[in-house]
Amino acid sequence: MEIIKGSVTAPNGFTASGINCGLKKDKLDLALIFSEVPALAAGIFTKNALRAAPVIISRKYLNRGKAQAIIANSGNANCLTGKQGFKDAEKIVETVSSFLSVKKGGVLIASTGIIGKPLPADKIIGAIPKLVKELGKIGEIAAAKAIMTTDLYPKKIAVSVNISGKTVKIGGIAKGSGMICPDMATMLCFLTTDADIELKALKTCLMESAGNSFNSITVDGDMSTNDTVFILANSLAGNPKIKQGTPDYKKFRDCLNYVSVYLAKEIAKDGEGASKFIEVEVKKAASETEAKKIAAKIANSNLVKTAMAGEDPNVGRIASAAGAASLKLDESKLDIYLNGIKIVCGGNVDYQKMSLTKKALKKKDINITVDLNSGGSSAKVWTCDLTEGYIKINARYN
Amino acid sequence: MEIIKGSVTAPNGFTASGINCGLKKDKLDLALIFSEVPALAAGIFTKNALRAAPVIISRKYLNRGKAQAIIANSGNANCLTGKQGFKDAEKIVETVSSFLSVKKGGVLIASTGIIGKPLPADKIIGAIPKLVKELGKIGEIAAAKAIMTTDLYPKKIAVSVNISGKTVKIGGIAKGSGMICPDMATMLCFLTTDADIELKALKTCLMESAGNSFNSITVDGDMSTNDTVFILANSLAGNPKIKQGTPDYKKFRDCLNYVSVYLAKEIAKDGEGASKFIEVEVKKAASETEAKKIAAKIANSNLVKTAMAGEDPNVGRIASAAGAASLKLDESKLDIYLNGIKIVCGGNVDYQKMSLTKKALKKKDINITVDLNSGGSSAKVWTCDLTEGYIKINARYN
Repeated sequence: MEIIKGSVTAPNGFTASGINCGLKKDKLDLALIFSEVPALAAGIFTKNALRAAPVIISRKYLNRGKAQAIIANSGNANCLTGKQGFKDAEKIVETVSSFLSVKKGGVLIASTGIIGKPLPADKIIGAIPKLVKELGKIGEIAAAKAIMTTDLYPKKIAVSVNISGKTVKIGGIAKGSGMICPDMATMLCFLTTDADIELKALKTCLMESAGNSFNSITVDGDMSTNDTVFILANSLAGNPKIKQGTPDYKKFRDCLNYVSVYLAKEIAKDGEGASKFIEVEVKKAASETEAKKIAAKIANSNLVKTAMAGEDPNVGRIASAAGAASLKLDESKLDIYLNGIKIVCGGNVDYQKMSLTKKALKKKDINITVDLNSGGSSAKVWTCDLTEGYIKINARYN
Repeated sequence: MEIIKGSVTAPNGFTASGINCGLKKDKLDLALIFSEVPALAAGIFTKNALRAAPVIISRKYLNRGKAQAIIANSGNANCLTGKQGFKDAEKIVETVSSFLSVKKGGVLIASTGIIGKPLPADKIIGAIPKLVKELGKIGEIAAAKAIMTTDLYPKKIAVSVNISGKTVKIGGIAKGSGMICPDMATMLCFLTTDADIELKALKTCLMESAGNSFNSITVDGDMSTNDTVFILANSLAGNPKIKQGTPDYKKFRDCLNYVSVYLAKEIAKDGEGASKFIEVEVKKAASETEAKKIAAKIANSNLVKTAMAGEDPNVGRIASAAGAASLKLDESKLDIYLNGIKIVCGGNVDYQKMSLTKKALKKKDINITVDLNSGGSSAKVWTCDLTEGYIKINARYN
């Protein structure tokens, strides 16, 4: 596997564009991804009971297992918008379908932004001709920017891999920043590939890689109403069709994993107000579920996140969060490492190492490893610290 | 029922004191509450798997159902301190027992403060003679102050009630501020009463009132390792013994509820960095469990809490948190009120009322009511907003 330039337009047959349609003042706010031939399609959505109109519509369309385009806007979530929100979303996909000469149901839709505000659908619909006109290989940068909300930078990646003698490519763009918590992280992520792959294998592959990537990040513990991951596979690479359980499947899945984990980490790194990227690893737990639960509790703890912002090795907060997550926690077996330094050993804090650990926390990347010494399972969750910046973004935006 | 002056020393036979023993620089850090006669005793503790030494020891002592004194320190949680922590806590209670001529096991102990630092037990032990000497009716103020950590003010109350012709009093002091989340809130709360009451009735009463008070508050979703509620009942009021299920029991329980809810709200109001007190009420839910779960999710949402800090009627965040908590949420039935203004009706945001609602949020006390219109159960959770102050306290304390 090799990392290559570009993102969603790196695979054969894909183009993209991003423009401003007036939902935001000066920034790009409308993105389009297009495959020149119909592609297989799969998706994953928020588990929030409150679902945005585009989530409900795209989920329905995905039953066909095929799609050829994705339209996405930032600046408005089209959620808590009642029947009008559905009508608006349907009118948008119909207009895109018509301009791209794609069957209705072949255009997926996603939205991100404020919840509960009526969507100015006319602005989007009026901008679709321009959006379609600007489709091109180079448009991936604008598309990645157009789905950003409070993100500070666009998140994108592409990889290529040799599958049975053919070069297969996978590309992706994502946005995150706030309202980020499993399952799913509040985010949009659009993946493209020119692989030829069975639909069932594509779906399984997406689910598997999401579990260890998009569902393993958290910024603030708030699950969004609009979380969406789409993947389009247009088979233009000309590889022998990838079937589940084969070596080719494993190869493809490893690449998709790589892309998903990369984008998920980028989202955590660029969490609202973040000054630190934090990896929480829980080791030797009785089960993977327990490991993930403890890791998530630590990663969601405001007290742990503020301690990391203050570069303070306050391991008591980490141990306390772990204890709050799991009734089985055995203090006498508990080891905690901060950036590789074993600061808690068998439930005892090693004060000799305090100043060394303090220094180690000055790094931008923090690793918190909690070793339970009670089993064979482990899990990782990625997050960021909690700073005044988060408050500023979410309280002082008026 | 009547609210009276004082707190834990208001009931007959109780005295208290609070001094500085050197755990903190200038502030009071050691508190003692004493009943001149042996009292019935009950307690509730944190459900965190990581438990501080004083929690484990006091839980053991409480099996006797009797106690005569409570010693508590702030500035150090004596948690994650291994075997030494236990030895230290036991030595402290032994010293107090000896100076007060109370049986070992008759002195309960609680600690609050930083987790994972060795307890300077000698400072506490050396200060016990002075602490005992200063016991008096007036000492309740110093005791309430001595258990404070980042609390801005002491939390205390006392009430009196006529029970079968006799005046029965209940008093309480509490501390909270950070690491506050059900169950229990991170807090210490010491209650005293001169009621004559059966032990079983006392225990039930305490459990019942805690559910609707201490377990209904949250500051930051972080459950502490040291949460403790104690109640001592010394029977000096001379009332006919209160038995479970009787009218006298109901009267006593209502008073204890009042005291507990008052202290719990005081803790939420004085949450770290708080500029607003927030009551979240979920109505017409299918069950009380569901109502409480949704209310807690909203109260723990950083996005809701920052929106309230910014006085912004961002109902999308409230609806999203509700949807994240309950899979059963029916958007089309959802009503949301902010300080009495119905801003969401049947899942639709009423934009006409936006500026009125914005004005209403300028108040220091915020009420968020979520009406699910799906059943007959309801629940309340109290919290505070999330401001730069919380970050400052928890990240910039070095």
